[in-house]
Amino acid sequence: MFYKYHVFFCTNQRPDGRACCQDHQAAAVRQYAKERVKALGLAVPGGVRINTAGCLNRCASGPVLVVYPQGVWYRYQDRADVDEVIEQHLRLGQIVKRLQI
Amino acid sequence: MFYKYHVFFCTNQRPDGRACCQDHQAAAVRQYAKERVKALGLAVPGGVRINTAGCLNRCASGPVLVVYPQGVWYRYQDRADVDEVIEQHLRLGQIVKRLQI
Repeated sequence: MFYKYHVFFCTNQRPDGRACCQDHQAAAVRQYAKERVKALGLAVPGGVRINTAGCLNRCASGPVLVVYPQGVWYRYQDRADVDEVIEQHLRLGQIVKRLQI
Repeated sequence: MFYKYHVFFCTNQRPDGRACCQDHQAAAVRQYAKERVKALGLAVPGGVRINTAGCLNRCASGPVLVVYPQGVWYRYQDRADVDEVIEQHLRLGQIVKRLQI
């Protein structure tokens, strides 16, 4: 695997008022995650990559992120939730069941 | 798995003139792939999803796409290459070795 954990945050903004991840400041939270992962030394070759993505089509469950290649999906509410995913899943390899969808 | 094949096209445009996937019209090619997958009836629940993504950090190999959860990366040159990935990998489940990176 090119990345151990390749994480995609949906940062899609729907223009028509329907629910979307960007309603929850997904782009800013993703930027936060990217900086945290870097600060923790996880953003190394073969390590963790934090990406933005277009609409992942799970709008009703949003805001969402997905961790590949494991294919684990999470709904987060805030940065504390994202911190938990980073610490438990991306650092320790443990799925955060309370946030998993 | 929520999607059998979750495909991410890097559509990042670097602002500073360095090599990037969007130099190769990645967004347009991705749009083409999305429409082809839909036309082939592959864009169904549990099927194929074609997404845009931010910089996947493989700029020198670009334009690139990655198919998850398999974690197979491809470099494409044109729509014919993308058609081959759709037909061989996304429809028949066979890796296209000549395009794999």
